[in-house]
Amino acid sequence: MICLRKVAIIGVGNSKFGIRNDVNVAELTFEAVKPSFEDAGLAAKDIEFVALGSAGAGAWYEELLPAVVAAEYCGLTKAGLVRCEAACASGSAAFQTAYSVIASGQAEIAMVLGVEKMREIDSLTAMEWIGRAGYYFWEFHNFGLTFPAYYALYANAHMAKFGTTEEDLALVAVKNHKYAIMNPLAHLQNKITVDDVLNSMVIASPLKLFDCCPMTDGAASLILASEEKVKQLDVDTPIWVAGIGCSSGTANLSKRPDYVGLEASVLAAQRAYKTAGISPEQIDVAEVHDCFTIAEIMAYEDLGFCSKGEGAKMIREGQTEIGGKIPVNVDGGLKAKGHPIGATGCSMIYELTKQLRGEAVEKGRQVQLKNYIALAHNIGGTGHYCYVTILRR
Amino acid sequence: MICLRKVAIIGVGNSKFGIRNDVNVAELTFEAVKPSFEDAGLAAKDIEFVALGSAGAGAWYEELLPAVVAAEYCGLTKAGLVRCEAACASGSAAFQTAYSVIASGQAEIAMVLGVEKMREIDSLTAMEWIGRAGYYFWEFHNFGLTFPAYYALYANAHMAKFGTTEEDLALVAVKNHKYAIMNPLAHLQNKITVDDVLNSMVIASPLKLFDCCPMTDGAASLILASEEKVKQLDVDTPIWVAGIGCSSGTANLSKRPDYVGLEASVLAAQRAYKTAGISPEQIDVAEVHDCFTIAEIMAYEDLGFCSKGEGAKMIREGQTEIGGKIPVNVDGGLKAKGHPIGATGCSMIYELTKQLRGEAVEKGRQVQLKNYIALAHNIGGTGHYCYVTILRR
Repeated sequence: MICLRKVAIIGVGNSKFGIRNDVNVAELTFEAVKPSFEDAGLAAKDIEFVALGSAGAGAWYEELLPAVVAAEYCGLTKAGLVRCEAACASGSAAFQTAYSVIASGQAEIAMVLGVEKMREIDSLTAMEWIGRAGYYFWEFHNFGLTFPAYYALYANAHMAKFGTTEEDLALVAVKNHKYAIMNPLAHLQNKITVDDVLNSMVIASPLKLFDCCPMTDGAASLILASEEKVKQLDVDTPIWVAGIGCSSGTANLSKRPDYVGLEASVLAAQRAYKTAGISPEQIDVAEVHDCFTIAEIMAYEDLGFCSKGEGAKMIREGQTEIGGKIPVNVDGGLKAKGHPIGATGCSMIYELTKQLRGEAVEKGRQVQLKNYIALAHNIGGTGHYCYVTILRR
Repeated sequence: MICLRKVAIIGVGNSKFGIRNDVNVAELTFEAVKPSFEDAGLAAKDIEFVALGSAGAGAWYEELLPAVVAAEYCGLTKAGLVRCEAACASGSAAFQTAYSVIASGQAEIAMVLGVEKMREIDSLTAMEWIGRAGYYFWEFHNFGLTFPAYYALYANAHMAKFGTTEEDLALVAVKNHKYAIMNPLAHLQNKITVDDVLNSMVIASPLKLFDCCPMTDGAASLILASEEKVKQLDVDTPIWVAGIGCSSGTANLSKRPDYVGLEASVLAAQRAYKTAGISPEQIDVAEVHDCFTIAEIMAYEDLGFCSKGEGAKMIREGQTEIGGKIPVNVDGGLKAKGHPIGATGCSMIYELTKQLRGEAVEKGRQVQLKNYIALAHNIGGTGHYCYVTILRR
């Protein structure tokens, strides 16, 4: 039996992404919360439950209890509260938790926050912390793998098996920078060419500097409500949660069956499609987890936007640009909008809500809506976690 | 509208609590997972979703992604996965998340894990980390408050307002040590007297060493199932989740209305009682958050076991011992069973499940069951978070 209590997104907000040394973690959160309240026409007192996604508490920023500090700053004290961590998918995990609390009848209105401050510490220390987002005991500590190296293993395998080239990877970066320029919230605002990517510093071969997303500060806020509350509030354009699929992957990369795709993505997507009762062809617009360019190409395949091994063809043919078969990361993606770890999942849903409402028009980034269905794909670690969230207008 | 999909606990496990330098975080988790599988008659493949409560990843133990590492070690890879953090209430937060995923129809069987390894690092560093579990920016960094000092503020206020004495606080420790001796899983196994407590080293006046819980390593595991699955599996004695209430409190202690109780406890309890449709008088046995002795006395009052200011009388009269009005922490509590932060909430529910099933008899700690209702009260920080969970046979 499935409990059919429907849940909708009724308010969204997103802070400016970038290097935000001008604010602390609570102030940064508020920058996303304020517009989400205005968007929903609600106030802090209306929120019964808050789930905050953040991964780096005590690591790349100092507050060990960011949820309580941010909640108090935003006037949310007395609401139920939890911090969710699923590495870089923390925002999506928080989304599922708040969704479930409403869907199970424990609350009528809940808030999902995602926030991360990654630029308070020096970059070498930050890199060490992020390197732990695998199997610290074996892979970081004993083999010295950093995070780009994890994905470089996948890039090399994908290139060897399917003939994907460094130019194909570069095209992903070029596309996502192109859209970031059209997104005032994005961290990186520079136009780049394939040659710029190919000539940038090698980080972990074949990945170069411009194949990697930046370390970004940022926050996003989403307000969710039950179907009854949506009716009662007479919400203009509620965006419904059609299905969530999640999966974990092995902590040990050595236990993976292959290195050309992420099993957790495939499983999470299958589960989400099944719950939503849709197939990939029906999706109008997607946000996928492009922490490195290879990750976006693997996502096309793992999510069923094309067959396995055909991901590079998608980007070469422009199928994931606006006007193509399925526009992907038209807000700039992690690659250029930026990747504040805990905020990313929420920021994806922020963008998709705007797209499904038709509110990306003024930015010149509006995709054409046919089925009014959108998909967010958020990875934690190197497929250690995956959340796929399907939304429907 | 409340969605009435019922959820039950069908399997429980608890590791030995103590200084566990013999195991890593994954191995420690497995010590709780294995008996929970045996208890439920299930295997890893049956688990669709896992929520793990742990607060100190990257702080007092090194793995930054304990959920993926522990899940893989226990064979749970491919299940949906999230780590929940609510400071010392992380285990209860994970419980609510897994409960909600089942109650909303997203899974039939889920697992809740709580784990913490606190003894890998030196005690001064550990104390600094735990001191951050307030408002780090203001209270730890600028005023130098450590965690016992937060609770000492409350103890002093309670003594000043209600005449609670240091002997009353000591009686809580004496009671909880008494029961810990009867619990082979407990960390501290020594009998203590009121004089032992009064003569122990002052940590933060009026709290002395024996007023404080130890820093403990430990894990607990709970398997939850939907009502349909409980029927299908023909579970002997399912223990039903009757209601969960949660609340947050201000990060700033300076913003609290008073220092004689925790507002988050009062709110969470009210919400849990309302959902479960019960009153405090109906509770047969309770686990409350006694990180410091004063915390247990305040909990009696905040949970409505007595009126405000009457908590000390409860302990003086032995009303919270087995045979008294409402037995509390008869497994030794945080004070003597130990307080592995992320595991505590799950371990409370482990104990209550055993009690409600009547399985604490062989340990001599079985309480008399009248209404077959039990309550777990789990605080994060100094009332920054509170979760109250009501169970019913």
